[in-house]
Amino acid sequence: MVKVAINGYGTIGKRIADAVDSQDDMEIIGVAKTRPNFEAKIAIERGYEMYAAIPEKCDDFERVGITIAGTIQDLLCKADIVIDCTPGGIGAQNKSIYEDAGVKAIFQGGEKHGVAEFSFNSACNYEDALGRDFLRVVSCNTTGLCRVLNPLDKEFGVKKARALLIRRAADPNDDKKGPINSIVPDPVTLPSHHGPDVQTVLPHINITTLAIKIPTTLMHLHVLNVVFDKKPEVYNIKAVLEKAPRIRFVSAADGITSTASIIELGRDLSRPRYDMWENCLWDESISIKDELYFFQAIHQESIVIPENIDAIRAMAELEENGQKSVIKTNKSMGII
Amino acid sequence: MVKVAINGYGTIGKRIADAVDSQDDMEIIGVAKTRPNFEAKIAIERGYEMYAAIPEKCDDFERVGITIAGTIQDLLCKADIVIDCTPGGIGAQNKSIYEDAGVKAIFQGGEKHGVAEFSFNSACNYEDALGRDFLRVVSCNTTGLCRVLNPLDKEFGVKKARALLIRRAADPNDDKKGPINSIVPDPVTLPSHHGPDVQTVLPHINITTLAIKIPTTLMHLHVLNVVFDKKPEVYNIKAVLEKAPRIRFVSAADGITSTASIIELGRDLSRPRYDMWENCLWDESISIKDELYFFQAIHQESIVIPENIDAIRAMAELEENGQKSVIKTNKSMGII
Repeated sequence: MVKVAINGYGTIGKRIADAVDSQDDMEIIGVAKTRPNFEAKIAIERGYEMYAAIPEKCDDFERVGITIAGTIQDLLCKADIVIDCTPGGIGAQNKSIYEDAGVKAIFQGGEKHGVAEFSFNSACNYEDALGRDFLRVVSCNTTGLCRVLNPLDKEFGVKKARALLIRRAADPNDDKKGPINSIVPDPVTLPSHHGPDVQTVLPHINITTLAIKIPTTLMHLHVLNVVFDKKPEVYNIKAVLEKAPRIRFVSAADGITSTASIIELGRDLSRPRYDMWENCLWDESISIKDELYFFQAIHQESIVIPENIDAIRAMAELEENGQKSVIKTNKSMGII
Repeated sequence: MVKVAINGYGTIGKRIADAVDSQDDMEIIGVAKTRPNFEAKIAIERGYEMYAAIPEKCDDFERVGITIAGTIQDLLCKADIVIDCTPGGIGAQNKSIYEDAGVKAIFQGGEKHGVAEFSFNSACNYEDALGRDFLRVVSCNTTGLCRVLNPLDKEFGVKKARALLIRRAADPNDDKKGPINSIVPDPVTLPSHHGPDVQTVLPHINITTLAIKIPTTLMHLHVLNVVFDKKPEVYNIKAVLEKAPRIRFVSAADGITSTASIIELGRDLSRPRYDMWENCLWDESISIKDELYFFQAIHQESIVIPENIDAIRAMAELEENGQKSVIKTNKSMGII
């Protein structure tokens, strides 16, 4: 059993903890948190040992009745691997304490590629991750793009990909951020960072991305436009994407007409926290007239969770074959 | 003085009435309305004679103290030209009463091209509109696309244009429509109607459009991607668009970072109803690497107003030269 520590128990950290907990070849040995809020209390209820991410704050936890098992340093001593789920930029600052503790570390997409010198997506480069000490799981948007572009590129050769990302303004639990009633080009200059980020995983893909931010919290939406070397038909595209992992087709004919109805689907499927771990790709939107277009929705809170599990498995060399790890992760999490 | 009647005094109708009122070669001889709401009262205050769009409803107006000058038929008898500003689809139903009254008619973009067999944009086809009896001013989104694509095509040859329209869900005064917190591919199938609609004005432009609907009321946002026959640089693009009418460059460096700040600009400029009649194009977004990209915001409530004024002038043959009409309209409305 690989011993996994989680540093940072927010949107991503709490989900990874639960996903690790559902595997039979790895275990959560503790989670580190800065503040003793309701999420900390639920972590305790779930049986995760709590560690103080900031040693001076141990008392804050004890004061609200949360028993602290130690500090982040204590946690790192016991771990084989730590998943850094701290806010973007903090992971880079944490790298030295992971190195000092001699523990392998996974960073999230909020960090730059340089923090680990290796950016990961399960279906794209699992085998290159085997045995690594440091690894970065790319962000939700980059993960969503890699999942579709990689299989399409392998089959038809991507000559040029263009993607517009309509980004949710904030996560559902965040009531501090805007916009509340406007459209924000973000960034106003081109390209957005997502295109170069895709190239950290798939360096040969010619891609341009743009992004805007809008008043919604549920999911991102991607509009993809891809030109290929070959001339696939719509059914060829569907056949390739149906075989690719973690892509779910949704259909307006079924009543899935918006990101709101996708989330309702997640709730009705009894998904934990209604998470949609797959790219949700609209069947009817797939269109080819010289070039491919389609819409896909990306659940920003959860899409990278299964990739983190695969990353643990690769770095700990629990499984040498990426496809097998993906199947194992999917099965344990309930991704069909 | 060309005698202008307005049929339908809502978002578009009330704006066109005021814009006609500010011209020296045309005058408002009356507006027809279905309901005696606050907008009707303000119309009376502004000195517009009120006519009942539905003859049976005259009493409703009298009851709230609004003197009715007659019915829509009475109004049409006195008019040289009627601007149909009724909700989409109603204009087509009205066409026969305009024909019976022997009055020229302008329809809005909510009607199909066939209603007038001629779709208009001031800078694209003014001269073809001279003396016509029926004309359709294309919708806000189509107007916004035509204004930029036509001059770019003339100068550099548009090989392929791709546009994604991020549409406001409803106008600011409409509190009945959604979405409130989601992203809606609208339509989910491709293309959206806007591309074919651009081709009603510019038939030779190879364009694909997609549209989504989001929770905002202020403006639409367009993301354009254009491939040219020639190879212009950013400064060439700017030079062409700076000369084209009704395009306003906005800059994030000036603090114009979203549709919300564009509207704040409209308010600070003391524009009537804060209307932004121009395409608002982000300076910093203009980017060329093989192909052009940029962001522009489109004020759905007002962008077609100056085109309606030019259309009146062309149909009444008040001015044979489109450029001169545009300059005259702009000057009278305060568009620099």
